[in-house]
Amino acid sequence: MSNQNIYDNQDFFNGYHSLRSSKDNNYNDLLEQPAMADMLPDLTGKKVLDLGCGYGHNCLDFIRNGADRVVGLDISEKMLEVARNESNDVKIEYINMSMTEISSITERFDFVYSSLAFHYIEDFSKLIKDSYRLLNSGGYLLYSQEHPIITATIDDKGHFNQDETGNCVSYTFSNYNQAGRREIHWYVDGVIKYHRPMGELLTTIAKAGFILEEVCEPTPKDWAVRKLPSIKKEFLKPCFLIVKAKRQ
Amino acid sequence: MSNQNIYDNQDFFNGYHSLRSSKDNNYNDLLEQPAMADMLPDLTGKKVLDLGCGYGHNCLDFIRNGADRVVGLDISEKMLEVARNESNDVKIEYINMSMTEISSITERFDFVYSSLAFHYIEDFSKLIKDSYRLLNSGGYLLYSQEHPIITATIDDKGHFNQDETGNCVSYTFSNYNQAGRREIHWYVDGVIKYHRPMGELLTTIAKAGFILEEVCEPTPKDWAVRKLPSIKKEFLKPCFLIVKAKRQ
Repeated sequence: MSNQNIYDNQDFFNGYHSLRSSKDNNYNDLLEQPAMADMLPDLTGKKVLDLGCGYGHNCLDFIRNGADRVVGLDISEKMLEVARNESNDVKIEYINMSMTEISSITERFDFVYSSLAFHYIEDFSKLIKDSYRLLNSGGYLLYSQEHPIITATIDDKGHFNQDETGNCVSYTFSNYNQAGRREIHWYVDGVIKYHRPMGELLTTIAKAGFILEEVCEPTPKDWAVRKLPSIKKEFLKPCFLIVKAKRQ
Repeated sequence: MSNQNIYDNQDFFNGYHSLRSSKDNNYNDLLEQPAMADMLPDLTGKKVLDLGCGYGHNCLDFIRNGADRVVGLDISEKMLEVARNESNDVKIEYINMSMTEISSITERFDFVYSSLAFHYIEDFSKLIKDSYRLLNSGGYLLYSQEHPIITATIDDKGHFNQDETGNCVSYTFSNYNQAGRREIHWYVDGVIKYHRPMGELLTTIAKAGFILEEVCEPTPKDWAVRKLPSIKKEFLKPCFLIVKAKRQ
């Protein structure tokens, strides 16, 4: 299912909400979000589209960074309820829509952003082509996803290995070069992701006409390691993939 | 050491020669070379530079594919002796030079090619900038290297894991996000490679001014699996990385 809406499942929503509320020990806030912030283009006076905006925290940041207008799009009405309360601004419009349907949007943007949502979408090529078409010339796409090393293993049993003292020393995965649907347990059973190897992802973006400017596999900074020492293990294997690409 | 010349070590040379001579069971001929061939640009009337040309087999292929002139460059005189015998053509010039020194070349090319050599070079950024400068506008870089998943593990103990029947089921690695020198055993002790994560590699290429057109993590085709059934395990993890990029 390409437009699954796990975020409107109450069990999932509760688990996710509790994760994202614990600012000191979640990888989004310690690793992915700081890296994404470092890669933001200049937003002064720009029009931004946030695909899978969730609570809208990034939408608010874009306004603080000078954006003129932000459209935050999410498939989950539950997430948008939080966004309209927590991340309200006259320059932000929240729209309840699946990012599989963005070809219906006629407005054009200078920046398309998406944090940790693209791996839920079955047709990546369409998503990238749609994003390209929604951008003005010279505009940027910046998106993050779970790293293909993480989404690869079909039985959801990719795992760290520990030495006798309990330190993580290596990571075991499989099925990397077998793209396709992955069903995992994340708060609830049956969460569907789509695994695509790095080469397939990047070639799809390039063939859509984008110029790839930066490919980032973020590592935790010192302050993040101080907050959560165990995050050091992310030096052993990549956790997220972030891509910045420019529309020609 | 950035310009190591393991290929002039007689023990290494013997081992390597025996590997490359066994056409039916080496990954170069079954996996990397067919994928590289699929990604070749049109060479009709073009000038080609082959960095780390080894036996010169590719140089000869480029001429057969219509190239006007090929310069094959290799750090190993032993390899070039074979090349001058096995892969001789009036349109090919073989030069004994480390690819760390190509900034001294004044000629310009339409195509820079390199098969499985860039991971021996310490200063990747300089190599990419030099390659860019050696290309005419619109020219292509096509290169392959061991996949970062393979070069990652510092103790050289990245490995497949087997189930009770001896089938490979997963792969274990480490140190992916710790770029740097790796010392491995490959026919001889002390072969030096340089591990760079995918993000670092691709961003370096993009920042040099190249347009990334294709990123390939090749999988074995049916004919290759028929020749060497065990190569199926390459669907579990990537083995090679191939990048095609265009000079603007």
